[in-house]
Amino acid sequence: MKALSIDLGGTHATCAVIQDSQIVASEVVDTDSAHGLQSVLPFFATTLCKLAANSGIHLSEFSGVALSFCGMVNTKETRVTSTNQKYDDATSIDLNAWSQSAFGLKLRIENDARMALLGEWYAGGAQGFDNVVMFTLGTGIGGAAMIEGRLLRGKHHQAGCLGGHFPALYNGRKCTCGAIGCAEAEAAGWSLPFVVKETPGYESSLLAKEPSINFENVFRHAAAGDPVALAVRDRCIRIWSVNTVAAIHAFDPEVVVYGGGVMRSADIIVPAIQSYVSEHAWTPWGKVQVRAAKLGNNAGLLGAVPLLSEGHAVGVA
Amino acid sequence: MKALSIDLGGTHATCAVIQDSQIVASEVVDTDSAHGLQSVLPFFATTLCKLAANSGIHLSEFSGVALSFCGMVNTKETRVTSTNQKYDDATSIDLNAWSQSAFGLKLRIENDARMALLGEWYAGGAQGFDNVVMFTLGTGIGGAAMIEGRLLRGKHHQAGCLGGHFPALYNGRKCTCGAIGCAEAEAAGWSLPFVVKETPGYESSLLAKEPSINFENVFRHAAAGDPVALAVRDRCIRIWSVNTVAAIHAFDPEVVVYGGGVMRSADIIVPAIQSYVSEHAWTPWGKVQVRAAKLGNNAGLLGAVPLLSEGHAVGVA
Repeated sequence: MKALSIDLGGTHATCAVIQDSQIVASEVVDTDSAHGLQSVLPFFATTLCKLAANSGIHLSEFSGVALSFCGMVNTKETRVTSTNQKYDDATSIDLNAWSQSAFGLKLRIENDARMALLGEWYAGGAQGFDNVVMFTLGTGIGGAAMIEGRLLRGKHHQAGCLGGHFPALYNGRKCTCGAIGCAEAEAAGWSLPFVVKETPGYESSLLAKEPSINFENVFRHAAAGDPVALAVRDRCIRIWSVNTVAAIHAFDPEVVVYGGGVMRSADIIVPAIQSYVSEHAWTPWGKVQVRAAKLGNNAGLLGAVPLLSEGHAVGVA
Repeated sequence: MKALSIDLGGTHATCAVIQDSQIVASEVVDTDSAHGLQSVLPFFATTLCKLAANSGIHLSEFSGVALSFCGMVNTKETRVTSTNQKYDDATSIDLNAWSQSAFGLKLRIENDARMALLGEWYAGGAQGFDNVVMFTLGTGIGGAAMIEGRLLRGKHHQAGCLGGHFPALYNGRKCTCGAIGCAEAEAAGWSLPFVVKETPGYESSLLAKEPSINFENVFRHAAAGDPVALAVRDRCIRIWSVNTVAAIHAFDPEVVVYGGGVMRSADIIVPAIQSYVSEHAWTPWGKVQVRAAKLGNNAGLLGAVPLLSEGHAVGVA
């Protein structure tokens, strides 16, 4: 299958020409999510047409256009249903009409966490499994679930994709989502500085000398033996582990794949979560595998192929 | 539809003749779950045949036999997959062969929490909704989920039905399931005495004079103003509320139904959980309704009709 694919993040979008599991050509387009989506659509059109031409592929050869979006979407009706201060105009844009007009191709849209799962399922860390949970650890914690080869979507399109918003601490920190004690509010990029500064001994920690606190410096100082960094690192790993058990108990997967920028420390994180899950998840049928994602930033782009294939299936929402 | 229905609990089973949403006749059979299932099957056969005859219904008029089982089951293959010290011999019994031989009818089996959901969906608190989460609060916390009119089952038949085993406290009490800090380990019948006895002031509480601690006396003494009972009651309600948010974030329901013996205090519990959910669940589409179950112990029996109907549908697992 040949596909055009757009992976839309907060500050830039990657436009790509996909052929099966290969990215034939790609180019990054700067965006400004506060400024909206409508104004950058013409740049996506120009870029994708240029990439297709340079690849020697006529537009009529593509099966469609896939858009990975950083918000909640209704895939069946090809529209954005809810945004969170990123491209807030997207809910009122007819994206399929834009795609038909720009390329003569139909467009399908999916949430970015689900697109990453589709990509890893098709060509990455979840290949060979039809029951998958994926988490992305970054500024927030993204989640997605697939059961028996189908993405879990639900009535209001949010099933499975709030995996960072299972509670880890019933009386914990208020989350940006409105809930309390979510895994994301206790162990993600945005909440990490609060957690570090509340940890006893912070003032004398190496982390107190950092201009900003992030997972890179927490893992680096933990490796050097800084007690505050160690305590925070181990607490974060524990919260991710507990959250993984929650997702296993909810969705009954064979494999849980972890991606996102924090996975630069996958060599520490994956074995620790695997060990916790093997000991504590209630899975009398066997053991769930914990794996690192393989495709990095390409996962969302490569999700285009299964997303567009799904569009051809009968009865699939 | 006419159906024979068996709701199998730890100390007794209810055998019933069902016609649509009515229980035409029923009788309780004593069982001993430690003693196994095989030895009580003949009593179920005798009882159901007698009830059918007394109701003037010939066995050939029934669509089948439904069995609600207190353990994990494979509905597609009509077998018990995992037990927890109740009817441990059930995994090796060919229940469909037994039913064919005893009644000339096919049998379908489902987990008891899922059967209660089916019953409440068909004729109780979840009527009119196809996206449902159900919890039962008792000695443990049971859970089940329905998405777009289909029970969520998953690869290993455990999706959705471990709703009492989402974490509420990442560093909490060890649960009987093997995980840590599950809602069930913090706020269910079996864990309640541990929670009460660890609460500061317990020795001078009215609860210290009770021969055994249960939700009935916790709610009663809380209503009378006992500070320990109040603290424990409110902590339990908070944990159930947070757990409800977890299930909403996982399964995207329109309605969450609460059943089980603890719901004798539904007038306090349901409004408190509804208020928490309305404030804290991330549901940009609207508000999830929290409701009390309506059918009590009959829910599992009445689940027979949708379970056996499902067996006729094409492509339903």
